[in-house]
Amino acid sequence: MKILLPDTMPLNPALPEGWVAVTVDARAEIPAEHHDAEALVLWGPSRTHLTSAVENLESLRLVQSLSAGIDGILAAGFRQDVVIAAGAGLHSLTVSEHALALLLSLVRRLPEAREAQARHEWSTELGGLQPLHPADRVTTLIGAKVLIWGFGEIGQTLAPTLKALGAEVRGAARSAGTRGGFEVIAEGDVLAALPEVDVLIDILPASEQTAGAVGAEAFAALPDHAIFLNVGRGATVDQVALREVLEAGSLGSAAIDVTDPEPLPADSPLWDAPRLLITPHGAGGRPVGPDERIAANVRALMEGTEVLHAAAR
Amino acid sequence: MKILLPDTMPLNPALPEGWVAVTVDARAEIPAEHHDAEALVLWGPSRTHLTSAVENLESLRLVQSLSAGIDGILAAGFRQDVVIAAGAGLHSLTVSEHALALLLSLVRRLPEAREAQARHEWSTELGGLQPLHPADRVTTLIGAKVLIWGFGEIGQTLAPTLKALGAEVRGAARSAGTRGGFEVIAEGDVLAALPEVDVLIDILPASEQTAGAVGAEAFAALPDHAIFLNVGRGATVDQVALREVLEAGSLGSAAIDVTDPEPLPADSPLWDAPRLLITPHGAGGRPVGPDERIAANVRALMEGTEVLHAAAR
Repeated sequence: MKILLPDTMPLNPALPEGWVAVTVDARAEIPAEHHDAEALVLWGPSRTHLTSAVENLESLRLVQSLSAGIDGILAAGFRQDVVIAAGAGLHSLTVSEHALALLLSLVRRLPEAREAQARHEWSTELGGLQPLHPADRVTTLIGAKVLIWGFGEIGQTLAPTLKALGAEVRGAARSAGTRGGFEVIAEGDVLAALPEVDVLIDILPASEQTAGAVGAEAFAALPDHAIFLNVGRGATVDQVALREVLEAGSLGSAAIDVTDPEPLPADSPLWDAPRLLITPHGAGGRPVGPDERIAANVRALMEGTEVLHAAAR
Repeated sequence: MKILLPDTMPLNPALPEGWVAVTVDARAEIPAEHHDAEALVLWGPSRTHLTSAVENLESLRLVQSLSAGIDGILAAGFRQDVVIAAGAGLHSLTVSEHALALLLSLVRRLPEAREAQARHEWSTELGGLQPLHPADRVTTLIGAKVLIWGFGEIGQTLAPTLKALGAEVRGAARSAGTRGGFEVIAEGDVLAALPEVDVLIDILPASEQTAGAVGAEAFAALPDHAIFLNVGRGATVDQVALREVLEAGSLGSAAIDVTDPEPLPADSPLWDAPRLLITPHGAGGRPVGPDERIAANVRALMEGTEVLHAAAR
């Protein structure tokens, strides 16, 4: 049995006996001699590669993506009996780390410090004796009320760190309850909760339901001092509304790692929005532990046990 | 009995019976009617205020600073029988948070992202698919080897968070051992340890022994990809050596919240050193829980029990 690995990152999964791994160009058509592959790992595949897989891999049983978001793969047209597994969890540590970097950078006003530095200015507004909790600004996570909208593996990885830093953390998901020890409110209750939120973190996946979820109404509900982060998907945010509240001064600051579209066009007015930090989809992009996930799911496929993060189709 | 509180921050300690709190101008001489005070709280006092306290408070028994560093107060000339207590611990959460903000900002290359943003550039170097551990750069705390030089309350507050983010953390202090569950090496062994260090965090206090502790020799011992942070005291770093290694490219990047002198003069070449982020001594400056500390130490003074963080004199 054959599994195709992408050449876009070094991989070396410990496969069950009888399996052969072949590395192929993830940006090109799959060579004819590998059309017998039963499993395919995807990491940054080109459209050509994906189409070739759909059309040519007739024995295919498992598609293992190393990405957390697999909307493109699900839409590619694989046969219904092919198991498609997402790389959920492989990016929890890195995306959580990036979200924390963005959040702390805004809280500690590092972009403004950088600007003062460029002017050779020792800013007394940024340093020296300060109140712990000024009325109009979030300057520490100690006591900050954080809501993580989209409370999956990434959110549940991030939440304990924020809590350890002194924040009060809740999640928002489809259904209310408790996850990983954190209170989770239902998505329908988010708007009502926002007026009490100091930091809103968007880790929503892209879907019809989440498109523009954080829009004018949500921004209006947040306090003027609030911080907004998006490390989910660009399409979940109404970017025009985001720019408007930043320009109006009715949002404290924001940082986004994802935009719609990506790359963000050079002529987008978003680049120049005040108090907005943009990173070019760099939160994840570096799976942690992909070999173990590939091996586990190939074994699950063979043994008929549960394939981790298999998509409902 | 009377305790003088500074007007530089709102304070309301729950004092033992018999004590009266009076708020005085921390930037001015102490008024004659309060020269009978037995305790004095200091937060951002002027030289005039401090001198007035030394010369006029003849009944003084306790000086409670809210600062972690009290070298200026110790040198001010208070009588030997006056207990001088540092505000150690009151800044652990805030300084630790700032150190984390600086470190993650460098690791996640946020200053470069901000520059790319100013150019309206969606940088493929900063985002997209990347190796988890490139050879020439620290781009995640996962697996990063961190050494915290000066492993007191701040270091021991910071270390568990870094560990939770995936870093391997050790401390360095006067004597080797284990503190708060972390391995601590002796200061004499720091130079030998540096070649294996990815991130060096300086939280050293200012003293004759620590002056210029991180100098040319230490920077030469660190790998070229290393990150250096200083949230201790400016005088512990040889700033010329720091600038030189940054300009030579033999240090990955650095962030300093403290300089020598402070404020850093506008004509200092340090402002323009490459890959250096400077914040204007803003890590602490916001004591957390000062009322509780003041009350506890006034009680300890009365009961003859141990005054927290009393300086050896």
